[in-house]
Amino acid sequence: MGPGPINADPRVLRAMSAQLVGQYDPAMTAYMTETMGLYRDVFKTANEQTLLIDGTSRAGIEAALVSMIEPGDRVLVPIFGRFGHLLREIAERCGAEVHVREVEWGTVFTPEQIEQAIIETKPKLLAVVHGDTSTTVAQPLDELGAICRAHGVLFYTDVTASLAGNTFETDAWGLDAVTAGLQKCLGGPSGSAPATFSAKAVELINSRKSIEAGIRSEGDPVVSPFGSATPIRSNYFDLSMIFDYWGAKRLNHHTEATSMLYGARECARLLVDEGIDAAVERHRMHGGAMREGLRGLGLRVFGDERYLMNNVTAVYIPEGVVGDAVRGELLDDFGIEIGTSFGPLHGKVWRIGTMGYNARKDTVLTTLSAFEQVLRRAGAPVTAGGGVGAAYDFYTDAHAASAAAAPEFAEADAV
Amino acid sequence: MGPGPINADPRVLRAMSAQLVGQYDPAMTAYMTETMGLYRDVFKTANEQTLLIDGTSRAGIEAALVSMIEPGDRVLVPIFGRFGHLLREIAERCGAEVHVREVEWGTVFTPEQIEQAIIETKPKLLAVVHGDTSTTVAQPLDELGAICRAHGVLFYTDVTASLAGNTFETDAWGLDAVTAGLQKCLGGPSGSAPATFSAKAVELINSRKSIEAGIRSEGDPVVSPFGSATPIRSNYFDLSMIFDYWGAKRLNHHTEATSMLYGARECARLLVDEGIDAAVERHRMHGGAMREGLRGLGLRVFGDERYLMNNVTAVYIPEGVVGDAVRGELLDDFGIEIGTSFGPLHGKVWRIGTMGYNARKDTVLTTLSAFEQVLRRAGAPVTAGGGVGAAYDFYTDAHAASAAAAPEFAEADAV
Repeated sequence: MGPGPINADPRVLRAMSAQLVGQYDPAMTAYMTETMGLYRDVFKTANEQTLLIDGTSRAGIEAALVSMIEPGDRVLVPIFGRFGHLLREIAERCGAEVHVREVEWGTVFTPEQIEQAIIETKPKLLAVVHGDTSTTVAQPLDELGAICRAHGVLFYTDVTASLAGNTFETDAWGLDAVTAGLQKCLGGPSGSAPATFSAKAVELINSRKSIEAGIRSEGDPVVSPFGSATPIRSNYFDLSMIFDYWGAKRLNHHTEATSMLYGARECARLLVDEGIDAAVERHRMHGGAMREGLRGLGLRVFGDERYLMNNVTAVYIPEGVVGDAVRGELLDDFGIEIGTSFGPLHGKVWRIGTMGYNARKDTVLTTLSAFEQVLRRAGAPVTAGGGVGAAYDFYTDAHAASAAAAPEFAEADAV
Repeated sequence: MGPGPINADPRVLRAMSAQLVGQYDPAMTAYMTETMGLYRDVFKTANEQTLLIDGTSRAGIEAALVSMIEPGDRVLVPIFGRFGHLLREIAERCGAEVHVREVEWGTVFTPEQIEQAIIETKPKLLAVVHGDTSTTVAQPLDELGAICRAHGVLFYTDVTASLAGNTFETDAWGLDAVTAGLQKCLGGPSGSAPATFSAKAVELINSRKSIEAGIRSEGDPVVSPFGSATPIRSNYFDLSMIFDYWGAKRLNHHTEATSMLYGARECARLLVDEGIDAAVERHRMHGGAMREGLRGLGLRVFGDERYLMNNVTAVYIPEGVVGDAVRGELLDDFGIEIGTSFGPLHGKVWRIGTMGYNARKDTVLTTLSAFEQVLRRAGAPVTAGGGVGAAYDFYTDAHAASAAAAPEFAEADAV
């Protein structure tokens, strides 16, 4: 029940234990094509270039940034938590002139602040995290696409921590590049990074294309003749080559990580079967119950209430309680992991997740129940049954409200 | 039965279906430490920094090269097949001044040729592939370590295609950096790259260390104060950070790909249980039987006999036979995949693997049996039973020889 990675859905693990097939076996290439389609649904996009990067979610971020950023490009990174620092750091290593704006952890930027920063820094690319698990808040992105378009700026976000657990719309929000991971709300293991790229992003990336000498045919360009684009600094993360591997050309690049593909495909199949909106509602329901339960235990929730993510909650460690001792007791004696925190929040808050396969009523109630015991033994003032009771109340109210508003929702939640 | 990826060992797939544990769960960090030890055995090294890169074998190559190469460094790449071109291409993208030497596909370099090239180009790093599946030959490396040491050159090789199927010694051969993958003789899926680094390589890499702003403590350096080293161009592949993640500091970097770690650990456990030398002998046995069987079918083997790899054999496509039609019939009608080829060999040879879980007597005989049928239908002149008969003879002779020489070998082979 930490901020991720969390338990994978057993159906994903079962899919990953299937025997391998050859890299160009028609079954394998059909799985690849099917997976592209499934992730179009998950990302809510019509982007042709919707595929997997073979690596953890951080690999997806680096693939997007190194393929889009040419050395010297200006990049704007609004930072509201740890992963904003990561975007800055990766963009700097790509050779970008990075401009940052920062707000206090637990808060987000207004669209006006971001537009103002765009006017001041004239970036080629805006790179911003959607939900940042380090602070448990999500930056609203729905108004930023129009601002980027108005100023001719490419718009990239990382949704590793938020996708499928919080409302997200690639096309409706005007995103040019989005990267994710499996180990949060998608219910899979770390190690594959779903990603999607708009036609504009693809045009930029393909203008930097080069083809490996070992597999080049006569007449193929070493570097594309389009414009004066500089070649991409990475081979492994060269999306123009990865597009040709996933596309009709099937031009050999890396050897697709077959088991991870099976896993990523199953994560998306489960979500598409459930319905992406239903999955988000499920996270809203169980995340809300956890949050109210933690309050019912007398804990104070961190972060601006208006922007809290559904799938992870940070609560202040009560005065006089040793945070790591409580975490250790929960893990050792109850088999429940909760998270520590980074940077300015280090030692100040715990982070508790309700995501993917773990966004369930039984995990919420079990965690609150065990947490009550451990907090009491640590000397914190807790009301007996206060956490579980508050969560039950939240479920009752939420079910009543949703049953009144949308009768089919209660069923979706029961999946 | 292609040049890889091939069928994974079912025990590896079963290991990968285990439920995930948290990133810093003591069970997880213990698995990481155990995996480092297992791969020291597999690589035959005492190197402390022996770990997994989260990505395919190509990710391992890029991590090694981008972490060791500073822009402007001279790198020497002897090229004898497709993957030498890949090393060149990745080194160029790292900003290296790359010098290449090339020999005809199917042959290798003499130590004298490589020493001469080192004298001419004065590189910081020699980067050479061990076994190149594109040509099915392996470059002898045993004399190159001493040459590199004498000239103050770092020595890197990629053993993705050869490790555990061909004799290989990291320390005895004087290597500073070695990278691999699971999908060949290790019997696992693509997606994790075992790698090992000498103390000298580690010193160089750590001199380029930087720590992410988001997790930096006060007083930590942004870039190491040692010397004038330039920061590593990649975050995901920054080995100095990856060392700190796998080491005692457990400093957060990527989220380790848990299922792939389980798989990589199981691949190594199986090999260590069998014995690395026994695994190499198994590949020598079944590879030899396949090669003699293919000759028994009347096919001509490609490549310099003295340097052929144990785990993959290339044979010329007979005159008048359409290579891809034969491959298609083998796959569609017999469920057996064999490989096509790249570059100068494209359309000229098939490549047939005997590696990892597929280095077995039944797979060799079944493949030869089916191949005979398909070749006959394609109009090639084949002797009835010639392939299977030659393989049987090879097994009989090899068993007799090994039983005479080393009675315990027959047992190891039966595992």
